[in-house]
Amino acid sequence: MAHPPEENLLKSGLILPPPPKPAGVYKPLLQVDNLIYVSGHGPVLEDGTLIKGKVGYEITVEAAKVAARQTGLTILATLKSNLGSLDKIKRVIKVFGMVNSTLNFEEHPFVINGCSELFAEIWGNENGVGVRSAVGMGSLPGNIPVEIEAVFELA
Amino acid sequence: MAHPPEENLLKSGLILPPPPKPAGVYKPLLQVDNLIYVSGHGPVLEDGTLIKGKVGYEITVEAAKVAARQTGLTILATLKSNLGSLDKIKRVIKVFGMVNSTLNFEEHPFVINGCSELFAEIWGNENGVGVRSAVGMGSLPGNIPVEIEAVFELA
Amino acid sequence: MAHPPEENLLKSGLILPPPPKPAGVYKPLLQVDNLIYVSGHGPVLEDGTLIKGKVGYEITVEAAKVAARQTGLTILATLKSNLGSLDKIKRVIKVFGMVNSTLNFEEHPFVINGCSELFAEIWGNENGVGVRSAVGMGSLPGNIPVEIEAVFELA
Repeated sequence: MAHPPEENLLKSGLILPPPPKPAGVYKPLLQVDNLIYVSGHGPVLEDGTLIKGKVGYEITVEAAKVAARQTGLTILATLKSNLGSLDKIKRVIKVFGMVNSTLNFEEHPFVINGCSELFAEIWGNENGVGVRSAVGMGSLPGNIPVEIEAVFELA
Repeated sequence: MAHPPEENLLKSGLILPPPPKPAGVYKPLLQVDNLIYVSGHGPVLEDGTLIKGKVGYEITVEAAKVAARQTGLTILATLKSNLGSLDKIKRVIKVFGMVNSTLNFEEHPFVINGCSELFAEIWGNENGVGVRSAVGMGSLPGNIPVEIEAVFELA
Repeated sequence: MAHPPEENLLKSGLILPPPPKPAGVYKPLLQVDNLIYVSGHGPVLEDGTLIKGKVGYEITVEAAKVAARQTGLTILATLKSNLGSLDKIKRVIKVFGMVNSTLNFEEHPFVINGCSELFAEIWGNENGVGVRSAVGMGSLPGNIPVEIEAVFELA
């Protein structure tokens, strides 16, 4: 039987970063019916700073995958901070993974798996995996390597 | 008490551009249940022409913010033209703000605030502010500096 | 009177490619209420390989439009494979068309029309046409020229 997300988070030993304050005129998340729309998030570290660097130029593909995982943790922090508990979320609907990469970069799915594998650890291989696009941007705010927006369904 | 969107628009003295005809095989907007999905819009001026130029190369970040505001006005024109009145819209759900910028550009949130601040003027600081991503594209149609797609909720 | 999508597909003589297996941790599609969310798809050929090349650099705008049409066929293959029949889909809600193009490319709507015209052939000019953005990415997975994600409504 599946374990609740909060129990999986506890067992993982993962530490969530502080939920970021919006960097502009938007809300971190918003509810419409039984869906939670989450704004684009970057990789916030435990000290509140952001991982930076263009993938394939300033940081490696492996470091970018770590950044995608950290972006996933940042989304978890926003969910937990706003909803009180990850157990309020039943499943992942959609992940839109944006990689700030060089123009000949080809490994976007590998990078964004850093976030997707985290969500699968928390919500399981069925409910933790939704639809996804993993694509390459020309640039991202503050030169972060990864920005991810997502949609979740409430329990 | 909050004023209706149309009253806020009137008070603002802002003039909406002509609603653009689709530049391809798509609808300007579409209703699903109580949501209005809006296609990607560019910055249409009152004479029907588009603001052009890559941000950080052909136009400044300040000019790009003005272009994002003009893109917001263009979305308002599409909403009003298709729904009859902005009062039909209760709140902003989502803004996806795309900036056609140089590869080292970092100020996407500042640029897209041009649109977000407009929506907050029209629908207020609570209902006019939704979730958002503000990101950098490699290129945009016709070399427009900003393209924005959005989702709104009907009243 | 409108013909069913499967009848239109049959009459068209078009051959669907094999539905692609996910290239990462995601589902090809997912249902939420009466909506089908489809993951980003690339242009899969009948032999299972992908069309490749950056638009305006390695492939022409005309070849890119063909790739967008092939991407549309790939989405149809995923829909049919997972739902059993295209007749299960009532209408196209949204197409997000991403073009892997040079930084001065401007013809994204022309390219993505390759997919949109296909959907209009299958579901008709009203139900087959939804909202859309057609934009330029810095890069795409495996250097595919086009990636498209979409939302459909069930019949």
